[in-house]
Amino acid sequence: MRDVAIIGAAMTKFGELWDSSLRDIGMESGMRALMDARLETEDVQALFLGNMSAGRFIQQEHIGALIADHAGLADRGIPATRVEAGGASGGLALHQAFTAVASGLHDVVMVGGAEKMTDVSDADAEETMSFAADQEWEVFFGASLASLYALMARRHMHEYGTTPEQLAHVAVKNHEHGSANPNAQFKNKLRVEQVLGAGRVAEPLGMLDCSPISDGGAALVLTTLERAKELTDSPVVITGSAQASDTLALHDRWSLTSQRATRTAAQRAFAQSGRSIDDVDLMELNDGFTIGEIIALEDLGMVEPGQGGRLAEEGVTALGGERPVNTSGGLKARGNPPGATGIAQVVEVYDQLLGRADGRQVEDARIGLTQNVGGTGATVSVHILEVA
Amino acid sequence: MRDVAIIGAAMTKFGELWDSSLRDIGMESGMRALMDARLETEDVQALFLGNMSAGRFIQQEHIGALIADHAGLADRGIPATRVEAGGASGGLALHQAFTAVASGLHDVVMVGGAEKMTDVSDADAEETMSFAADQEWEVFFGASLASLYALMARRHMHEYGTTPEQLAHVAVKNHEHGSANPNAQFKNKLRVEQVLGAGRVAEPLGMLDCSPISDGGAALVLTTLERAKELTDSPVVITGSAQASDTLALHDRWSLTSQRATRTAAQRAFAQSGRSIDDVDLMELNDGFTIGEIIALEDLGMVEPGQGGRLAEEGVTALGGERPVNTSGGLKARGNPPGATGIAQVVEVYDQLLGRADGRQVEDARIGLTQNVGGTGATVSVHILEVA
Repeated sequence: MRDVAIIGAAMTKFGELWDSSLRDIGMESGMRALMDARLETEDVQALFLGNMSAGRFIQQEHIGALIADHAGLADRGIPATRVEAGGASGGLALHQAFTAVASGLHDVVMVGGAEKMTDVSDADAEETMSFAADQEWEVFFGASLASLYALMARRHMHEYGTTPEQLAHVAVKNHEHGSANPNAQFKNKLRVEQVLGAGRVAEPLGMLDCSPISDGGAALVLTTLERAKELTDSPVVITGSAQASDTLALHDRWSLTSQRATRTAAQRAFAQSGRSIDDVDLMELNDGFTIGEIIALEDLGMVEPGQGGRLAEEGVTALGGERPVNTSGGLKARGNPPGATGIAQVVEVYDQLLGRADGRQVEDARIGLTQNVGGTGATVSVHILEVA
Repeated sequence: MRDVAIIGAAMTKFGELWDSSLRDIGMESGMRALMDARLETEDVQALFLGNMSAGRFIQQEHIGALIADHAGLADRGIPATRVEAGGASGGLALHQAFTAVASGLHDVVMVGGAEKMTDVSDADAEETMSFAADQEWEVFFGASLASLYALMARRHMHEYGTTPEQLAHVAVKNHEHGSANPNAQFKNKLRVEQVLGAGRVAEPLGMLDCSPISDGGAALVLTTLERAKELTDSPVVITGSAQASDTLALHDRWSLTSQRATRTAAQRAFAQSGRSIDDVDLMELNDGFTIGEIIALEDLGMVEPGQGGRLAEEGVTALGGERPVNTSGGLKARGNPPGATGIAQVVEVYDQLLGRADGRQVEDARIGLTQNVGGTGATVSVHILEVA
């Protein structure tokens, strides 16, 4: 297998993009990633695209061909493949793109993620998000993603003494980070009292514990490390690319306070890269709900189970802290168009490793990690990126 | 890249499977393919799944994890990836699975396709099928897949003198074939007059020119040729695996009477396998609408453009003819659950190459080809299979 590098990355602004359709979003992010790589449309040999539910959001399936067509990539009939795994759609698309380059099948591959959620009502969008959980055994009985994550949060509090304040600190930190990200959906800063005082969605999670409904797209250009060195002085290598699955329904899991698929995917990615959690300078993790970031930090082995709650509270994971997490603002503040999220996480780490994350730069960042979650953890993808 | 072989294949019965959910269908086909390969669940290292629109049909996304979970594959956290490209979802899932084995990433991979269409009304199912065409420029203005294929048929008649009788012969032949396939949705034989006299869907296509709404699943087990030789005396090798894209909307194509993506994908698959159309003993082609099979035969180079209409009429493509096409019954008679179709085509060719297609066996079949189409041809996948 060949070494795979990223040579271009870009994203649209995330938010309520009333003036943009899914095809606009996909095209904009892809074209900007290509420009970033200083390549032409003609250089792209294959497209992989993460998208969760265009069938529900815009009554359109066949999304790979849609974006390839509107980006001018269909003229040469390049392979265009949509990958779906709920909120982990982007991470899985990246894994496929990685494999296509690593295997020698293609030399230059575009991978994108895009979602257009705001063409339907908020209620419809939330309902569709729940389709990443188990329809027959969870959603049919009224469970939403928020209520399932609320079960995890409640159990985490019960077992480990995690507090609502600690959850709130995750949101406060990520809004602080997002305020420095020009592409973030929310740039407003929060105080802990605001998060605690916000309307309850599913106890103990309030509105400000939850990531928003978002439109947006993100894209990367991958090639071999060898080729990347000819094209740029600063290639970023994907040294670990892994994914894992778990039971779809939360009640079938071995634990409510740990996502096994994160552990498995991380184990695989660390083994592949020869790195450990201690080598990682910064991370983009799944904070679709605040409890998610806490659980992820425990499952990745940064702290013992139950100790994740103190990290945001103590500033460890803040910009300027020991191990910054979600410098982009995370799903919470940057926004969470599910198909795009896994790619946007990598865009942030790429920008950080290149030293171009203006206003939120992590000093001396050399190694970054992304963790992208589908549903309540039935799919998790982990990527490790390093300065070459 | 390593040589990749199929060592197990199975499908559920296709039809209106009122007693089976999508998870039942996916599990049944997968377990039967594993039994066919004489392997255990524990041997499977990754799952790829083709599914077009579970979000619309059963209000469930995250389909890779769903099937992995219910097939007992999530216990070990294996990678499970859903791939979507309208009716070409299965073919593209197979291409991903092929790449995973060829690249050395995994040694034993399960690839399946499944769709459950009959939980919604016929009208809703037909509407959802149209989501493989261009929502903004075709479907929004009332175009259905049938009406778009009707445009192709009308133009083919205008340019080449193709007749309604020739279209009807495709349906008659494929129902004749399907009558010998125990898994086919329709086992009734048709007469040309019946096809011509059936209610019109979109002139010149009548009801009996169109494939049905179907539930069903199909699955394959892939491994390296080297490993396959240890496991079976009769491995079937995938010597060509390719896909191509084209514009999503029909009106943007260079021709209404040819699907360029078929030509491009076939060119790639033939180049990869070192074969030509003349080497192929049997084919499973996209006859979602009767005109589709005719156009496919022309695009694959079996006859000159415009000459495809006579092939079914003259018996060339019938069982016992020179080059049997759609011995399974095709999409028309075997049925067309879009996520499963591309895999079911390969199941048929596999059974034929192993000499176990009871009642519809092609004599001395050594090389087979499948052509799997999404929408009106914006995605096409071509696979070439050979007896090792």
